[in-house]
This record gives sequence, structure tokens and C-alpha cells, in this order.
Amino acid sequence: MSAIRSSLIEPDGGALVNLVAAPDRRAALRAEAEALPRVRLNAVDVEWAHVLAEGWASPLRGFMREHEYLQCIHFNSLRLPDGGGIVNMSLPIVLAIDDADKDRIVAAPDVALAGPDGELLAILRSVEIYPHNKEERIARTWGTTAPGLPYVDEAITSAGNWLIGGDLEVLQPIKYNDGLDHYRLSPQQLRDEFDKRGADAVFAFQLRNPVHNGHALLMNDTRRRLLEMGFKNPILLLHPLGGFTKADDVPLPVRMEQHSKVLEDGVLDPETTIVSIFPSPMHYAGPTEVQWHAKARINAGANFYIVGRDPAGMGHPTEKRDLYNPDHGKKVLSMAPGLEKLNILPFKVAAYDMVAKKMAFFEPSRSKDFLFISGTKMRTFAKTGENPPDGFMCPGGWKVLVDYYNSLQTEEAAAAAAAAPATV
Amino acid sequence: MSAIRSSLIEPDGGALVNLVAAPDRRAALRAEAEALPRVRLNAVDVEWAHVLAEGWASPLRGFMREHEYLQCIHFNSLRLPDGGGIVNMSLPIVLAIDDADKDRIVAAPDVALAGPDGELLAILRSVEIYPHNKEERIARTWGTTAPGLPYVDEAITSAGNWLIGGDLEVLQPIKYNDGLDHYRLSPQQLRDEFDKRGADAVFAFQLRNPVHNGHALLMNDTRRRLLEMGFKNPILLLHPLGGFTKADDVPLPVRMEQHSKVLEDGVLDPETTIVSIFPSPMHYAGPTEVQWHAKARINAGANFYIVGRDPAGMGHPTEKRDLYNPDHGKKVLSMAPGLEKLNILPFKVAAYDMVAKKMAFFEPSRSKDFLFISGTKMRTFAKTGENPPDGFMCPGGWKVLVDYYNSLQTEEAAAAAAAAPATV
Repeated sequence: MSAIRSSLIEPDGGALVNLVAAPDRRAALRAEAEALPRVRLNAVDVEWAHVLAEGWASPLRGFMREHEYLQCIHFNSLRLPDGGGIVNMSLPIVLAIDDADKDRIVAAPDVALAGPDGELLAILRSVEIYPHNKEERIARTWGTTAPGLPYVDEAITSAGNWLIGGDLEVLQPIKYNDGLDHYRLSPQQLRDEFDKRGADAVFAFQLRNPVHNGHALLMNDTRRRLLEMGFKNPILLLHPLGGFTKADDVPLPVRMEQHSKVLEDGVLDPETTIVSIFPSPMHYAGPTEVQWHAKARINAGANFYIVGRDPAGMGHPTEKRDLYNPDHGKKVLSMAPGLEKLNILPFKVAAYDMVAKKMAFFEPSRSKDFLFISGTKMRTFAKTGENPPDGFMCPGGWKVLVDYYNSLQTEEAAAAAAAAPATV
Repeated sequence: MSAIRSSLIEPDGGALVNLVAAPDRRAALRAEAEALPRVRLNAVDVEWAHVLAEGWASPLRGFMREHEYLQCIHFNSLRLPDGGGIVNMSLPIVLAIDDADKDRIVAAPDVALAGPDGELLAILRSVEIYPHNKEERIARTWGTTAPGLPYVDEAITSAGNWLIGGDLEVLQPIKYNDGLDHYRLSPQQLRDEFDKRGADAVFAFQLRNPVHNGHALLMNDTRRRLLEMGFKNPILLLHPLGGFTKADDVPLPVRMEQHSKVLEDGVLDPETTIVSIFPSPMHYAGPTEVQWHAKARINAGANFYIVGRDPAGMGHPTEKRDLYNPDHGKKVLSMAPGLEKLNILPFKVAAYDMVAKKMAFFEPSRSKDFLFISGTKMRTFAKTGENPPDGFMCPGGWKVLVDYYNSLQTEEAAAAAAAAPATV
């Protein structure tokens, strides 16, 4: 028998980047890193180092140098060397340093990167330091500079005024030790798993919310359509985002528990579904970010990408409207340079069909039969202990959410009690 | 003898767009336009209609529809149909209408466009109306939303909340009747002129300021370099921008008079120079706008483009710094999608050499011998009647500026007197 030859989509740039040092190099690298000027990363920086190290951003080989940053913010793409075409790259993957860091590095060609607790993580080689114009970065990435953008508040406002780019070499695989590391498959591990299962099509579903039966309907319907198109073994990559999210999103551990219930309850078929964590932090940058979400999944082997209404969107932080036109995400995705090879599958709208008593694709002709259950409404149900309509979500998954919101209410009540003025 | 075959660079999309109706169609078109719902253009809209009509934005055939607008603001480029590659397009060329306009148009496929005084100018066909998200447009175009951007104040803040795109058909060539229309050569007229002169290279110099001898040195040096490269007949396109500029820029009529003196005085060679007006309005959008400036000149036949420090830049409207990193313009230009075919010539810095008593290329090794004469300093010289150093600008050109600033001071004094409280 011949060796298995992958039929998966080619990664951007032709080869998957892997920036994790081979085990036999690690001791020497660590010794080298000990002697270098050191830059301290925050939690979000570490998430990006993880993303880079495993090749989600292939062909990018480290935090962006200025020529990459400029192409990213102006063109959402990177030109490959020697006329090799272009690849998509819509979010700046950059590392900010402050004046003191910059002065300390001086003209060092290489620097060591340490984690939030000071532990050595990586070496950044042949570094280039250039100005961090935060205003321009924010305006070109989000299309607004309004205060209150979650990623900006978390990772940009207090960041330094310089960016440092270079080639990354990570000392060892990045782990979080949160009980979820086994879900964090690298693009190469995902590709190996798809090949092992004999996938001839891989369709990715990016999410940062619990899976309800409308999502499941869509994913199962997508599989059916792919089979109709002639694919023999389409595999679903259910791919929750695992990095930074805003405070009112459901936390990753709760989501992972909810997703596993959805598979246990048979709403999705474990035989044809892989659940894994996408380690990227979330920008909430709408049409700009959805390109990153799609591009990274190409690198993980997905050639079909499901895109919904207002992907990576949120409410405008200071105005009573969506930050992005809800249709722009899928339109921009379908036009994006470097994503021509990806098949974009627009999300069909599912809602609760009050006649059939289940989630179904919305039919405008009988719109009064359908109930739209927003995230806010779902949260209200869970908080008040009220059950959503039968068939909205599998019972096991729903219980996870109810327990989470209950614990949140208990915490909030305790915090409120602690903050209240003492009675005399 | 065989017919002249142009060796000029191909226009974007392969053919130069011409949206001016042929003379024999004009009467019928006017009759048609009379019966259509009408949209009133402002002065800047007319400049864009002019730009579109003559094909400066080829292959764009009218004000942008949403799919063009989205590609422009996200990718600075447009995808050609049928896999025909991409062309550069960095500035949104859009037409804003207000709610009342939108209600009046309803579902009309075609609308008439009238000038500021109500005269019919054009028909816009198969129109598409979509939301005008001003904040996002401004953020993605300028990389800031700070108040005080000249184009935003002039043409966006008070504009309507909808954009209307469609195919433009202009009733007759757009004229300004300001005594300068003979300078307004269309891209086709420029191409014809270059061919007539047997140009085998065309190098464009975009400007919105008076020409001093440093500019002239650069242009003459560029010609010398092109001859050295083996070109036999390089022609300079001296191409001042003629549309909207900010209040403290030197007005177009003064600049044109100054430029003509520079040629009269022999600082530039009239045999190998064409002076013409570029009808575009100015955005002051730095690296985003310089792409437009270059792309439009490709359409006019230029295959070499001279780019300076901080092209299309200005001071930040609310902070004490340049709005753009002065190096980003030429870097972004050299990376821009669709501009690969253009030869970018970086501007060498010229300054006044106090030893040689003339403008010369700056030599860092003897920096103390050089005097940098900024626009502000030049203005101060002209205002105070002080002469700049010999050799800074040809005397004829300098006199034009002195006269202009004198007239400005007289006007300002008159305005101040009129505004002063009457003495009792």
C-alpha cells in the first residue's frame, strides 16, 4: 500500500510554518535566551505567540516587521517573495514594547520573550523596532476609534509606543494547564486527524458562543450539501475561539463543556466532527477579522468556511447600532485577496419554528411562525431559570449554561454585598 | 510609413474609460435627463464626475457601487471580472445623497445629476443605493477620525447618509471657465501628446505647491537618470492637482502662473515637459491617497512616478505631529496591489546649499552647509517681502508668489478692518 497522501487544501505560502524548537535544540536555546535582553509578554501577546508558533498565520514567521504591518493594515494581505502571489492577512499580529524596553534592547539583533510570570518562552530574532501609531492601527483595523473596543482596551491602549517584529522561535509548545490543552490541536495535528479520517472536504465553523440547535441544523445541512456535491467524507471542524474574549461572552471552559454535551447528546455526529480550540484572541473587528478567522482555518486544512450574519461583529461601543453592517462580513470575505481558494458558505438563518416546535431555516413567507432567540434572550432565559422552547438546545448543553449563569449571579450578588456600605 | 503605435503603459483594465457622450447623442441624453429624478452635486462631486468621465479612475465606470466601495476601503484595490487580475483603487469615489434624495429616487433605475447651479451634467444608470457609514469611511481612508480633516469638513460631514453608485454618462465635457481649461488635458489627450512627442518613458510629478529649484533639480536629474537607463526621449508630466485643496494651500490659478514662469525662465525644458492639471480633489490621506495619485497617472500614460517625503500628508489636525509617518507613503506605494507595473522613483531630498549658493541634493556629510526652506518659511519670506536665497526659485516664479501673498495680506487687512468694532 502506498503512503497516505493528503488531499487537503494547501496552507498559505505552500508550507505550514512551525516555530516550535525541536526537543534536542531546547536546552541550547534556553541558555541562549537567558543571556539576551528580555521583553515581558502579557496574556494576549502569549496567545499571539502561540498562534504564530503553530503556523495559524503561515507564512508569517514571527511578529510583524513594518513592511508586513503596512501591507496588513492597508491591503489586508501580504505579498509573497519572488512573485509568489499574495496571501490574506487582515489583523496586525504585532508585539508592542515601551520606551524602556526599546532603550534596553538598543541594537541587539535578538531578544528573549518571557511570559507574564517571567518564564522564558521564545527568542525573537533579527528584530526590527518601529513606531506603534495606535490611532492609525485602530482606525484601519476597526473602522472606528470610538472608546470601548474590547481588544483595544485590553491590549492596545496601555501598550507601548513601539512595535518589535522579528523571526520567532518558541522554546517549547505553549500550554495553558487549564484542563483544555488536549482541545488545542495545532494546524498540523488537525491536518493529520483529517487525513486519518480520510476527509475529502473540511468545513470550518468559527464560534465564540454556545451551540444551539439552529447552529447544529446549519452544520448538518452543510454536510448534506457537501455530500450532494459529490464529496464522500466531509468533516466538520467545530472550532471555538479560545483566546481573549470580552467580559460578557461565555467563558471558554463553559463553552467547551457545552460543546461536548452537544456531541454527547448526538446533535452533532462525533464520527464526522472534530472539536478543537482556535487559540487566537478576539478583536471584534467584523469584516476585517472574519478574513483572519477564515485564513487561519485554511492553514488548518479547511476548504469550506461557514460565515454568518455580522461575523466578529458587536454593538457600536458608543452609538445605538451595530458597529458593522451585518452583511459586510460575508461580502468582504468573498472579495478578500488570498481567499479565492476558500469556498465561502453563507449562513442560512435559523430560528425557532413555533409550529414544528424545533429550530428550522427561516421562511419569510410564514415569518410569524418563527421566533428569534438572541444571545441576550437566551441569557435571560438561563438567568431567570426559565426554559427556552423545546428543541432550542439539547438539554445537556442547556444545563451547562444555566449552571454558569447561576454561578455568575451568585458571584455578582456576593460582589454587590461586599461593595455595599456597611450598615451601622 | 506605418501609423504611430503607442508604446505607453497600458491603462488599468486594458482600455481607457471615456464616459463623455458623443456629440450626436447629447441632445437625446439631455431630453432623457430632463425627465429623470435629479440629484444635485456640489463642487467636489463635480470634480469627481470629471475625474470619472475622462477615465482617470479606469476601469471604474461611475460612482462606486457597494462591492467596489468595500474592496476600495478594505483592500485599496478592485478585482477585475473573469479573473482579470486586480487594479489599484485606494480612495472611495462615491456620491452621497440625503434621505430626501433617496425617497425621491425610490426605485428609479437611472437618475440625472445636476451641477451646483442646477444645470444638467450627467445620467447615472442602474443605480444602487447603500448606507454611507461616514465614521468607517473616514477611519479606513485616513487612519484617524480626528476632527479637522480638510476633505472631511468640506465633503463628508455635511453629506447625506446614503451613497449612490452607478454607471456614469456625462452630457458633455466638464469645463470650469476659469481661464485654465486649456491646461486640463484628459488622459487620452495626454497620451496623444506623449505619442506625438515620441515619448519612450513618461515620468509624472504630482504637486500642489509652487515649484522651487529643488523640485526642478530633481525632475531634471530624473530625466538624466532615465537617459542613462537607455531611454531616448523621457517626457516629464508636471501635473499639479486642480481640485479641492485646503484653505492655506496656494490657489490653483497662482500655482499655474508660477509653473508657467518656471518654464518661461528655462528652469524646466518646455520641449520635454508637459504642464497639465490633474482634476482630482485632494484628500490629504497620505499613504492611501498617494496610491490614487500614482494610479491615475498610469491611466494618463506615465510609467515612472516620483514620490517624495510624506506624500499627500499634512499635520495631524489635533496633535502636534505629522498625521502620517513621512516614510510610509513611498513604502506603501511600493507595496500597493495593482501598481507593480509602475516604476516608483523615490524623491531625493534637495536643500539650499549655502556654499554653492543653489539648490542641491542634500549631503549628510556636510549637513551644516544646507538650509531647508519649508513651505512655511517660503511663505514668511514672501509675506515679509524678504527675498529667499539666490537660486532658491527663478525670479519670475518668485514674483508670482510675492504678489499673491501681498494680495492676501491686503484682503486680510480689509477683512480685519471690516470686522473691527466701529469707533464712536
